[in-house]
Amino acid sequence: MTGNTFGRVFRVTTFGESHGYAVGCVVDGCPAGVELSEEDINKELRRRRPGGRLASPRKERDEVRILSGVFEGVTLGTPIAMMVENKDANPKAYESIRDLARPGHADYTYFAKFGVRDWRGGGRASGRETVARVAAGAIAKKVLSKLGVRVYGFAREIAGIRAEVEGDIEEVFERAERSEVRFPDTEREGEVIERIESAIREGDSVGGVVEVVVRGVPAGIGEPVFMKTDAYLAYALMGIPAVKGVEVGAGFEAARMKGSEMNDEMYAEKGRIGFYSNNAGGILGGITTGQDIVVRVAVKPTPSISKKQRTVNLKTLENVEISVRGRHDPCIVPRAVVVCEAMVAMAVLDLMMIQGVVPRFFG
Amino acid sequence: MTGNTFGRVFRVTTFGESHGYAVGCVVDGCPAGVELSEEDINKELRRRRPGGRLASPRKERDEVRILSGVFEGVTLGTPIAMMVENKDANPKAYESIRDLARPGHADYTYFAKFGVRDWRGGGRASGRETVARVAAGAIAKKVLSKLGVRVYGFAREIAGIRAEVEGDIEEVFERAERSEVRFPDTEREGEVIERIESAIREGDSVGGVVEVVVRGVPAGIGEPVFMKTDAYLAYALMGIPAVKGVEVGAGFEAARMKGSEMNDEMYAEKGRIGFYSNNAGGILGGITTGQDIVVRVAVKPTPSISKKQRTVNLKTLENVEISVRGRHDPCIVPRAVVVCEAMVAMAVLDLMMIQGVVPRFFG
Amino acid sequence: MTGNTFGRVFRVTTFGESHGYAVGCVVDGCPAGVELSEEDINKELRRRRPGGRLASPRKERDEVRILSGVFEGVTLGTPIAMMVENKDANPKAYESIRDLARPGHADYTYFAKFGVRDWRGGGRASGRETVARVAAGAIAKKVLSKLGVRVYGFAREIAGIRAEVEGDIEEVFERAERSEVRFPDTEREGEVIERIESAIREGDSVGGVVEVVVRGVPAGIGEPVFMKTDAYLAYALMGIPAVKGVEVGAGFEAARMKGSEMNDEMYAEKGRIGFYSNNAGGILGGITTGQDIVVRVAVKPTPSISKKQRTVNLKTLENVEISVRGRHDPCIVPRAVVVCEAMVAMAVLDLMMIQGVVPRFFG
Amino acid sequence: MTGNTFGRVFRVTTFGESHGYAVGCVVDGCPAGVELSEEDINKELRRRRPGGRLASPRKERDEVRILSGVFEGVTLGTPIAMMVENKDANPKAYESIRDLARPGHADYTYFAKFGVRDWRGGGRASGRETVARVAAGAIAKKVLSKLGVRVYGFAREIAGIRAEVEGDIEEVFERAERSEVRFPDTEREGEVIERIESAIREGDSVGGVVEVVVRGVPAGIGEPVFMKTDAYLAYALMGIPAVKGVEVGAGFEAARMKGSEMNDEMYAEKGRIGFYSNNAGGILGGITTGQDIVVRVAVKPTPSISKKQRTVNLKTLENVEISVRGRHDPCIVPRAVVVCEAMVAMAVLDLMMIQGVVPRFFG
Repeated sequence: MTGNTFGRVFRVTTFGESHGYAVGCVVDGCPAGVELSEEDINKELRRRRPGGRLASPRKERDEVRILSGVFEGVTLGTPIAMMVENKDANPKAYESIRDLARPGHADYTYFAKFGVRDWRGGGRASGRETVARVAAGAIAKKVLSKLGVRVYGFAREIAGIRAEVEGDIEEVFERAERSEVRFPDTEREGEVIERIESAIREGDSVGGVVEVVVRGVPAGIGEPVFMKTDAYLAYALMGIPAVKGVEVGAGFEAARMKGSEMNDEMYAEKGRIGFYSNNAGGILGGITTGQDIVVRVAVKPTPSISKKQRTVNLKTLENVEISVRGRHDPCIVPRAVVVCEAMVAMAVLDLMMIQGVVPRFFG
Repeated sequence: MTGNTFGRVFRVTTFGESHGYAVGCVVDGCPAGVELSEEDINKELRRRRPGGRLASPRKERDEVRILSGVFEGVTLGTPIAMMVENKDANPKAYESIRDLARPGHADYTYFAKFGVRDWRGGGRASGRETVARVAAGAIAKKVLSKLGVRVYGFAREIAGIRAEVEGDIEEVFERAERSEVRFPDTEREGEVIERIESAIREGDSVGGVVEVVVRGVPAGIGEPVFMKTDAYLAYALMGIPAVKGVEVGAGFEAARMKGSEMNDEMYAEKGRIGFYSNNAGGILGGITTGQDIVVRVAVKPTPSISKKQRTVNLKTLENVEISVRGRHDPCIVPRAVVVCEAMVAMAVLDLMMIQGVVPRFFG
Repeated sequence: MTGNTFGRVFRVTTFGESHGYAVGCVVDGCPAGVELSEEDINKELRRRRPGGRLASPRKERDEVRILSGVFEGVTLGTPIAMMVENKDANPKAYESIRDLARPGHADYTYFAKFGVRDWRGGGRASGRETVARVAAGAIAKKVLSKLGVRVYGFAREIAGIRAEVEGDIEEVFERAERSEVRFPDTEREGEVIERIESAIREGDSVGGVVEVVVRGVPAGIGEPVFMKTDAYLAYALMGIPAVKGVEVGAGFEAARMKGSEMNDEMYAEKGRIGFYSNNAGGILGGITTGQDIVVRVAVKPTPSISKKQRTVNLKTLENVEISVRGRHDPCIVPRAVVVCEAMVAMAVLDLMMIQGVVPRFFG
Repeated sequence: MTGNTFGRVFRVTTFGESHGYAVGCVVDGCPAGVELSEEDINKELRRRRPGGRLASPRKERDEVRILSGVFEGVTLGTPIAMMVENKDANPKAYESIRDLARPGHADYTYFAKFGVRDWRGGGRASGRETVARVAAGAIAKKVLSKLGVRVYGFAREIAGIRAEVEGDIEEVFERAERSEVRFPDTEREGEVIERIESAIREGDSVGGVVEVVVRGVPAGIGEPVFMKTDAYLAYALMGIPAVKGVEVGAGFEAARMKGSEMNDEMYAEKGRIGFYSNNAGGILGGITTGQDIVVRVAVKPTPSISKKQRTVNLKTLENVEISVRGRHDPCIVPRAVVVCEAMVAMAVLDLMMIQGVVPRFFG
């Protein structure tokens, strides 16, 4: 009972190893009648691709091929299979460390679990697996957009520097999209880049915090007592490679607040219900309030570093030193933003379909 | 597709409203041949019950009745249904606020979702629902103990005061169990209690952080890429009432660390693999490493406070003020510890069963 | 991963052993706002209860207690737990054969599977388990009736005698309900009863065929390619104790027909599509056509017979003879009708909810 | 919540339309360390391909490409994605009837369900979809063979002529494999072929009965009370295109037997338990007995016939006549045998994995 399917109604099954023939997924449960082209997918894949001097030199074109489920430009309601071939795979680079467990990576745990292991760049455990998530997320976003829902992600913090921006999320998002590191605080962006460059020079890496905001979700979404919106988002996000924490609304800050500070007071105006604040992050009792959903995710520093580290040869059980020199990002946060958006989009759409507010076909 | 079932192999379906006939659950998938008595369940229910002057005055005896699945003192491998009757239910207390949305509660969102609502003490959204989680968790712990796995929970932080304890988890746990508020830092316990008492006096409430450690889980547990151990724990924990954040190992601190600090270096000794540190919290690539699993959970302050707050009458849509005077805990953290343990036990056992390291019957 | 849950959206988890404290179930996913009383359930339980000289002398009152999920007379959208206590349990009767595998029963297979076994009247494998199915089915029927869907079951064949009735299903159903053995062919009913009585005299038993017809299901229900309506009904029905075959529409007769005979030709009239026949049994490509759904089920003769049979003592592995003298029906078909209806109702409602044609709450 | 995934532990998600880019599937849950090549799949695909003058003239090479999950000749325990490109697609043939509902086909019901429809040869509802089932089944068989389990299918009946063969299933199977129509009764094979040829001449088609036998499954497999082995097999088989009935062991004949005839008496010999007969078809109480599992499936005549039939234009709602002249088999039974085997293999392996008798990796 391996766990490569996400979702209950909008169900995504992903496949693929980093240096195998292809990565991809099957999306089962997409409503029929949604306009969908390969370019809709490619657009999001490009946002995820590494770019510029601060990222991995592996250069995949990442062009999707839709294998099924779309006919005459619209979805059929049948499974949409998608595949992205691995063109710039270069497993040779990994041969010298094929039996070494890279610290912070899943080399040892995959071996402990499966008894065999694809040593080429992490195999299934590679960040490349997230291509499939982003492809599926692109479809989820397409459907959500027809329902008036939008998902915005950006880097809230990188290398210990926090983006001090508030205000309208659309504007924050646009600013982040224009930034080389998806960091919306223009004043401090330079400092962030300096720290990343300094990490590169030291053969080290840095982490950060991604924030995702979802606007337009109606009240009433989420299924107590176990499939709550916050629980489901935590599940969706904590499973992304490198994520070590998830919080909703006030998050860990809530632990230090008083009830009178934390509670969002309410009002009614012209027959509609509103809140004076949003410490809840748009979710009460696991069900959406109709406000913006706000989640944040802790991303650890990239484990692949060229600094020497102590580790083990999994075959010989010898103690060795390792210096990881593949093609890696010194800071994965800017690209993780796109993956977080994708997972949130899939989770929110799934819950909306479960609630029955999404038609089975768009006519 | 409501979400009242947790687990895939060890599956728990809970039921019950706070002031209805009973709360309870059906545990489907428990291995056969496990000794199980009602006292095994009651023992954990007692740990969850409110106690002392710092807790809710609602006094339920919380004695479980096992309805099925146990015969001649052992589990049959068939569903174990359990029920705890609500004896001290007092819905009258809620009549005056039956149509008001209590801030920080799920009153409004349940109404938005279901169209009808059990207004008696939160109904299904009440913390009383967690009785069923603890009952199921007690069975999970029983099975885990036969596999050499133990789950330890304690309050890492209350009302902004952090327990500065390290060292062996068994000792930390024992100290917490002896504390009125499950706070293992004896030096600062007095200060914690003062803050809670001060919150009571102000008609307010406080929150905190729960930490859970699992010892004895072998390497290789967890199902990439979506049913990872950390993702599953996040799902299990974020769905507990009042939880706003979950982190694993170094958690949000990881976002500020460098790769060379965060990575846990490895060594081999006498044919076994070990780690020099545990920033990963016992999980790499979503799969257990064999080290202690370490998770922390942010618990918000109890939303029920007697301080006046602005809110809305859901029926008339009038703006009103509310002062919540039911029977509530000023700080839910000590009781939440037991619920967190239960959810972690269920999740870990489920993943171990998925991995196939738990027999279908114990002979 | 035991299998005591049926359904994906309308989900029923059953529990209980024949001579344990209670049998029952949790129905998770019932829409909110449906009027529901214990009498709605009891009414169907009475239809299932043995009656008259042709049935088991075990006399359970079978009165349900609703434990949760209903408040002020309507469903809350939360789990509905139900329990029927076993009052007339009499395990003593089974003590003398506690270690013997009754031929045609699941004694040996349960033992092979679980290592332990509740020997009291079959334990979980008893037909008594179907009380929970009928209780859940009663709720499914209640919801279906609000959608204009009705489920009709009757005995198509008993002890080799076929009911030669066609015509309107409502009338056939009413006639069957008035029959002691749910056999709608008044002319041949006497012969059926004679054969059952003759089986009683011989210490033997007989079987038959149940037919269920569902009227009012719209076209478009069923989920290719694996959750097709016919596949799902086959799953639902083949899991009922004693069922050995399931067929849809022309069923096994279809194997002997030509395409030109089997195909149901179509016509359009006043903007609506119709069929000239219904060999398909209301299902094409696994999706409903809008016609009546027609299924038939083969029920084997009751395995408990007093005639001597050769068998084995499971503990000692000795060869022995057995004569089963508990309280049993010589022909289970009339009672199986009610269980078949219940399973069909649950399956059809589930598929309709999956298709999104059932509201989350009735207002 | 479309239904394109089969299985709980050994999970297969299929995709593809008849004349789209490709058909294929993702197999998630295959144990690691199993030797697997594309030829293992192709071998079974060739058994399913049409051949000779009695079959469809569509000539697909049906060569699979494995996209992931296999490395250095063995399975990795990660998802195995497979794709078979549609090379001989010829949608033009369908243009003239693109809006007509072919009687006996799913054209109308797909349209009713999804609002859009791939009219090219049935799209997703085409028998071509079963390529993916056979590919996945090939993997299931590979794993089963390592566990000593084998699946044998053959035509028990075609066009009303029954194969009167008993005796060892291996021999029956081998004889069927040598037959042009998978019919193991050499004496009557000629008559079967005559009837098929006669149907071709009349522009008509015929059906039949497929029998599948599984040998080597241990006692104790199957999950009461809903995931019983028989229920699961019925689910697996009834969802195959053209199947209208499923029976186990004595099947519908059981309805006419007495308990004393139907019950399989038991004996013990040298510490092992055996049965004097196998009317149960290897399943009691939904759990395997260790005997051969025996199931039979009714296959309706191919609905595509060139004989004129009355039907409807789905767009204009006009009454029309149709003569279906695509590339079709006059009798699908011989090819259905292979599909039935595949579904049975998947179901049995899944249940064995659920029971925990299949290792997570073969070393």
